[in-house]
Amino acid sequence: MSQQSVVLIKCSDQKGLIYTISKLITDHGVNIVSNQEFVDPSGIFYMRTVVDGQLDQVELEGALFKALPDDAVIISKAKQRKKIVIFATKEAHCLGDLLIRSYSNELYADIQAVISNHSDLESLVKGFGIPFHFVDHNGCSRENHEEKILNILNNYNPQLLVLAKYMRILTPAFIQAFKNRIINIHHSFLPAFIGANPYRQAYDRGVKIIGATSHFVTADLDEGPIIAQSITPVNHQFSPKDMARAGRDVEKVVLAKALKLVLADRVFVNHNKTVIFE
Amino acid sequence: MSQQSVVLIKCSDQKGLIYTISKLITDHGVNIVSNQEFVDPSGIFYMRTVVDGQLDQVELEGALFKALPDDAVIISKAKQRKKIVIFATKEAHCLGDLLIRSYSNELYADIQAVISNHSDLESLVKGFGIPFHFVDHNGCSRENHEEKILNILNNYNPQLLVLAKYMRILTPAFIQAFKNRIINIHHSFLPAFIGANPYRQAYDRGVKIIGATSHFVTADLDEGPIIAQSITPVNHQFSPKDMARAGRDVEKVVLAKALKLVLADRVFVNHNKTVIFE
Amino acid sequence: MSQQSVVLIKCSDQKGLIYTISKLITDHGVNIVSNQEFVDPSGIFYMRTVVDGQLDQVELEGALFKALPDDAVIISKAKQRKKIVIFATKEAHCLGDLLIRSYSNELYADIQAVISNHSDLESLVKGFGIPFHFVDHNGCSRENHEEKILNILNNYNPQLLVLAKYMRILTPAFIQAFKNRIINIHHSFLPAFIGANPYRQAYDRGVKIIGATSHFVTADLDEGPIIAQSITPVNHQFSPKDMARAGRDVEKVVLAKALKLVLADRVFVNHNKTVIFE
Amino acid sequence: MSQQSVVLIKCSDQKGLIYTISKLITDHGVNIVSNQEFVDPSGIFYMRTVVDGQLDQVELEGALFKALPDDAVIISKAKQRKKIVIFATKEAHCLGDLLIRSYSNELYADIQAVISNHSDLESLVKGFGIPFHFVDHNGCSRENHEEKILNILNNYNPQLLVLAKYMRILTPAFIQAFKNRIINIHHSFLPAFIGANPYRQAYDRGVKIIGATSHFVTADLDEGPIIAQSITPVNHQFSPKDMARAGRDVEKVVLAKALKLVLADRVFVNHNKTVIFE
Repeated sequence: MSQQSVVLIKCSDQKGLIYTISKLITDHGVNIVSNQEFVDPSGIFYMRTVVDGQLDQVELEGALFKALPDDAVIISKAKQRKKIVIFATKEAHCLGDLLIRSYSNELYADIQAVISNHSDLESLVKGFGIPFHFVDHNGCSRENHEEKILNILNNYNPQLLVLAKYMRILTPAFIQAFKNRIINIHHSFLPAFIGANPYRQAYDRGVKIIGATSHFVTADLDEGPIIAQSITPVNHQFSPKDMARAGRDVEKVVLAKALKLVLADRVFVNHNKTVIFE
Repeated sequence: MSQQSVVLIKCSDQKGLIYTISKLITDHGVNIVSNQEFVDPSGIFYMRTVVDGQLDQVELEGALFKALPDDAVIISKAKQRKKIVIFATKEAHCLGDLLIRSYSNELYADIQAVISNHSDLESLVKGFGIPFHFVDHNGCSRENHEEKILNILNNYNPQLLVLAKYMRILTPAFIQAFKNRIINIHHSFLPAFIGANPYRQAYDRGVKIIGATSHFVTADLDEGPIIAQSITPVNHQFSPKDMARAGRDVEKVVLAKALKLVLADRVFVNHNKTVIFE
Repeated sequence: MSQQSVVLIKCSDQKGLIYTISKLITDHGVNIVSNQEFVDPSGIFYMRTVVDGQLDQVELEGALFKALPDDAVIISKAKQRKKIVIFATKEAHCLGDLLIRSYSNELYADIQAVISNHSDLESLVKGFGIPFHFVDHNGCSRENHEEKILNILNNYNPQLLVLAKYMRILTPAFIQAFKNRIINIHHSFLPAFIGANPYRQAYDRGVKIIGATSHFVTADLDEGPIIAQSITPVNHQFSPKDMARAGRDVEKVVLAKALKLVLADRVFVNHNKTVIFE
Repeated sequence: MSQQSVVLIKCSDQKGLIYTISKLITDHGVNIVSNQEFVDPSGIFYMRTVVDGQLDQVELEGALFKALPDDAVIISKAKQRKKIVIFATKEAHCLGDLLIRSYSNELYADIQAVISNHSDLESLVKGFGIPFHFVDHNGCSRENHEEKILNILNNYNPQLLVLAKYMRILTPAFIQAFKNRIINIHHSFLPAFIGANPYRQAYDRGVKIIGATSHFVTADLDEGPIIAQSITPVNHQFSPKDMARAGRDVEKVVLAKALKLVLADRVFVNHNKTVIFE
């Protein structure tokens, strides 16, 4: 297990790519355990290969760059636990679910810290022996607030940020600094009910199903590439509050699912969409 | 079974309604088999009662009107098969599903006829021994087209119209003539992807779940009270055409489910929503 | 909200029961908010009524006993939080989910304590400020072990015991002492894969869906009345361990759902089955 | 589209297989569109490759046989519609669903004929212009009955037999003659409720979910490799008949899904299980 690596490739499609790539990988002395590939209709080729054995990643990447189209993006890395920082506000269900998964060793990642613009969840987080940083947003500009957060993040250098019901909008500059590395959970079945209070909107429309969406954060609010979605049935007896309660169970499941996929290096971003090799 | 009746009541809420109604019903010599009730937050009371035994409906309705608030709407009727007319265009999956259900005696209704603006489905329908009316919309105004349809409907006097992928927009006048009696199937998880080509929209947005919605038709396109919704997972491998194909299986199931509920007198319209006693 | 009570009735069916009961309830000066009833084919009548207002429960119960069949079981009680004790062993996912729900005030109950035959989960539980009792089963008989547990329970007097992956079989005597008050989560879609290691059994059979079942505990292992079930898809890529991992997410959701229904007084036991008024 | 072929390979696993195979395929002048592979824990390698271009199948298969382990099973074939014969008895829901799919051109197969041990469904089938063969089982032995069926099948030479609620048990000899080529739909969530009247069994056990299973037919009744399963929720209000009714909607969906997978050459049989490349 500890000897497995993942090779991720994205480039313009052309004939013989799979053969070329599998040849180069095999030439580097490792065994291909699994290959998954996809060609987007616009002609972009995606491939995820898992290999077993000692791999000289730099050498392989060099060989691949020579053999593949000029626009190739190639990443090879040993399979290993990632470091993440979780952002939260006041609600505990998504954060708590991740904490329990981490405690149960079900999350293939280390939660380095939790950052929040409120102090409510401090004792919960500290109970798990994880650092909690309360960064008050009162009395400071959005930029100042984010600067304080960035100072904290610098100490951790996380590979991924997880917004577990973090109820603040991030600036484009912040998002750019963590491009395709911020995962959010939105409390609606996007693109239905974009914007504020989706459960109220769902109630007003009288839908029979509500949902949640986990996506990468982009500068366009609620428009980022979708990673996972799920739903739960509701009916006329549900108040907006009941819908929110039912929705919370979906939110935590969807966020955990999306995070798991990203942590396993199974998710490519393809413009405003994702290619996911499950 | 043949002696069962359904009593449907909608009125302003007030204290003691359930007792008052159950007393009047029991006084009329029938046994209450089941009661379902709901009070909308705006203060509207809904009740569906199934009774067993010989019922003088006119007398009961009179007694209820006396005892209940002035705005009461009361309908009592023997449980019986309804008469429906189905509208279709070219796609066979929803229509075909209903035809098979009718053939298998699973549909608690008689399909009196199928009306279509194309002739494609004629042989399919006639194979089931059901009249097929091709009403060409070419060369005539929307009003003239509907007039021809209304002339046909006059011969059947159906209780319900089912739009099984009927790809024409009905006029407000037509809709008003069959208020809360036209059921449509929309090929998206409303309110996501309102309008044309929802599967293309879903593809462009990169959603991971698509759905279908059955609703009563109102003058506001795609805004009518929702009766049933369902979904199916998709992924990056799905083209818009693949999504449409997967969606068809959801569409036919949702339409059949909604129709079954309406045929069993289980659906109340509550402004732009439904109250459904399952 | 604080003035609401629930009236639960189970008796032989006879004509006019709904009317008789709703009359007596209304005569006691409270308003019926909702009624749900069901008649089992064997002729047992079940009813759950929610009333609003000050209720003299003793008096109402007396009046009902006089009016209803001799075998009537009548319980009326104010809606209120219940006291529960959770049993666990080593796995944290079900227990952790309940702790987070309790922390988020989503569980309509107070977790009085957690009892375990292992000490692994002690720090997790104590982090939530909840007493943890480690009752080692090594070196003592099943009866002695349960005696120690009963001594602890005597201090709490819980209304419900929740087995959150408690991997010990309880004696008939213990079960009898908490008849219909012990909820278990079984890691299979019962009655498939009764007995040990259901995920291994599921793997060997090559099923495409696995599930979990929450049920009341009876002397017949895995045969108690089912409260809730749910499933998740699997495929040939899943090892038994992967199935167990996927199954854990189902287990915690199903247990929480079953517990929520029981805590809301919505579940009747009907021989080896349940009648659930959702 | 018309130039695509599928290459299916099953053999003992060894190092470098993916590379070896993709090299040989590329050497034969076609482009690999997609590769899917799986190694069973017992060491069996499965691969499904879709290629684009003119392919000399015999030559490729020869080259592969030389290069791969001795136990290799290799099939390469142009993507094309298959020929199927459907078996039915009296129930129309599964058969009707397949007929409508065939009519709508959604089924990637030609239904050559329907064979039934009852004449009930004759007019339905003939309405679709498909031959119907009534083979009465009364007054003849199981072997004689099957002999008559085999005589009919000889005229069609179908690649696949679909048992769409065919309520007769086939002899081991018949099953052997169509090994891994007979698809059945079983009206339970196998392995729960093996044997007769599963909906009655489900009712008696008080389950909250029922299901259906599509599998290849083997000599061990209800034990064949599972291709697809699905479920639907039920509750205490469902009689065995209601469960059967709800189950029919699941049965037809599951059978259609399994058939679609098999028709697309996506299903390998792996002892008593399946490996499915979706």
